[in-house]
Amino acid sequence: MSTVTAYAAHSATAPLTETTITRREVGPHDVAFDIHFAGICHSDIHTVKGEWGKVEYPMVPGHEIAGIVTEVGAEVTKYQVGDRVGVGCFVDSCRECAQCLAGEEQYCDNPGMVGTYNGVGRDGQRTQGGYSGAIVVDENYVLRIPDTLPLDAAAPLLCAGITLYSPLRHWNAGPGTRVAVIGLGGLGHMGVKLAHAMGAHVTVLSQSLKKMEDGLRLGADEYYATSDPATFETLAGRFDLILNTVSANLNLNDYLGLLKLDGTLVELGMPENPMTVPAGALVFRRRRLAGSLIGGIAETQEMLDFCAEHDVRPEIEVITPDYINEAYDRVLASDVRYRFVIDTESLR
Amino acid sequence: MSTVTAYAAHSATAPLTETTITRREVGPHDVAFDIHFAGICHSDIHTVKGEWGKVEYPMVPGHEIAGIVTEVGAEVTKYQVGDRVGVGCFVDSCRECAQCLAGEEQYCDNPGMVGTYNGVGRDGQRTQGGYSGAIVVDENYVLRIPDTLPLDAAAPLLCAGITLYSPLRHWNAGPGTRVAVIGLGGLGHMGVKLAHAMGAHVTVLSQSLKKMEDGLRLGADEYYATSDPATFETLAGRFDLILNTVSANLNLNDYLGLLKLDGTLVELGMPENPMTVPAGALVFRRRRLAGSLIGGIAETQEMLDFCAEHDVRPEIEVITPDYINEAYDRVLASDVRYRFVIDTESLR
Repeated sequence: MSTVTAYAAHSATAPLTETTITRREVGPHDVAFDIHFAGICHSDIHTVKGEWGKVEYPMVPGHEIAGIVTEVGAEVTKYQVGDRVGVGCFVDSCRECAQCLAGEEQYCDNPGMVGTYNGVGRDGQRTQGGYSGAIVVDENYVLRIPDTLPLDAAAPLLCAGITLYSPLRHWNAGPGTRVAVIGLGGLGHMGVKLAHAMGAHVTVLSQSLKKMEDGLRLGADEYYATSDPATFETLAGRFDLILNTVSANLNLNDYLGLLKLDGTLVELGMPENPMTVPAGALVFRRRRLAGSLIGGIAETQEMLDFCAEHDVRPEIEVITPDYINEAYDRVLASDVRYRFVIDTESLR
Repeated sequence: MSTVTAYAAHSATAPLTETTITRREVGPHDVAFDIHFAGICHSDIHTVKGEWGKVEYPMVPGHEIAGIVTEVGAEVTKYQVGDRVGVGCFVDSCRECAQCLAGEEQYCDNPGMVGTYNGVGRDGQRTQGGYSGAIVVDENYVLRIPDTLPLDAAAPLLCAGITLYSPLRHWNAGPGTRVAVIGLGGLGHMGVKLAHAMGAHVTVLSQSLKKMEDGLRLGADEYYATSDPATFETLAGRFDLILNTVSANLNLNDYLGLLKLDGTLVELGMPENPMTVPAGALVFRRRRLAGSLIGGIAETQEMLDFCAEHDVRPEIEVITPDYINEAYDRVLASDVRYRFVIDTESLR
């Protein structure tokens, strides 16, 4: 076992503080790597605050992790010391269920993927995330970060990037398709960049026009304010695919009305209350309301390679660990363009 | 114009009574036919009672119509006198919008398909439905009933049949797929028969086991009571496709949990209140909630031909027009196995 410095939550309400945690011995199939950067995801905050179920404190968040390999187990074949690598939202899964065998480990049902933090690993120990100096992960759950992607920009791709990439691919976004992205935040701005890079026509649906200039610069073809009721008339029946990155409960009847025949609205956030869906909004145009959860390991690698090839990078603000608590407040206030990334140098 | 006898609703609450209505002159593209049988659909009752929007009384319901051609317009090419034909839920559409051009006339948005009754035709006259002795319809909205299908059994296929056939085809039911049908009524029993004929593994989800023997005889492989909470544990993650024929508001969280990864639950009914959908039920297995509305003319013809080829026929109870009001009461009490069909001989 090794000891590493980390930033941990000690309760649902106290600020995160510096502490030390242990990482397991490097097993035969494990990769150990120094963490260089870790993104701050809104779900880190939900989890810290206990809004997504039981938490065992102290808990180290962080599932957008990028760094450099320092040690590999005897039987590791995929990575070697010095490789640029990353880890996303999960560090293991059962490897036996239909979903795992299909490379969709995020949907593992036996009993589920092992979260990068606040989970329990194969060794029975609780997992701790990326706001720390180093981590040990089975090679099959490690991603390769292409040389042309800076590590700081690569980090948010491991959750925000794949969360948008996977549904865009699954529902065939590309040339000739019209994609709308609801919300221009950490997730939404990746949706705009990725959909644009895939060749789709991209529309941002944001509460106001405040970030319009940004949205167009990031690759959107059109930008509409959802606070203006006229938006829903103008855009009625327009889209093949709508990706909803907003966790608040929206009036889905309005948004479903923006879909074409056979169009799909994909929920990516997790609104606190159940969604309210009038059947007619689906029935009268054979529309679909769907969900999507990050992506499997193979698809996450594909996404990283795609981003390298198409020069798709998140817009980030790099911070030091002592700024984490302030960054959380700013995420909650939607005051970030568009992702905080922690430079973990002081934790190594 | 010609005068025909019909059974009409005169208000939302009064019984339907015999009356006379007029049918338009047979235009160059029209087909006139004697109606031999008309099915009673639950939506007839919803419409009569004004539950689905404004009604102009007197109104003659009926959109499951089968009969024999008596006259064709000068430019009609598809049909001739003596042909066995049918008409379903619509008698016209704009013929110009993307949906009409794609043969999905039921989703016409310019401004929408012309309902077989309680609609307004191209000539500005209100449409009147199949509880009558004869009808005049543009040849492009007339279906050919294959010789091996009796006219009485063919009638309910025009709505109940296509309502189930279309989503089964759209979501690829067939050998190797597991399909569940919620509700074993007029729609549900067609779902069982059609899915079975397509080679799918079919499960009925019914409130109780009362109709279990029927369900298995009609082609179901399994039959479960949804009043038993164990059903939702036993069948968790089991189905590729669930067709919901029940208009009541169900606990969709339970039913979505029965879907596999990438499974689809299709709403066919029109529950009065909006559906309540927890996002997690969709997100954690990339599930889809969709809607479907009858089918286009080409697909309806395909369905009729499929039913003839595979000997799929609804289970019907043939009645005379003077029994319509009692039949309505029995439909509302779910006391029909499984479709009333009016023998319209006395109206011709």
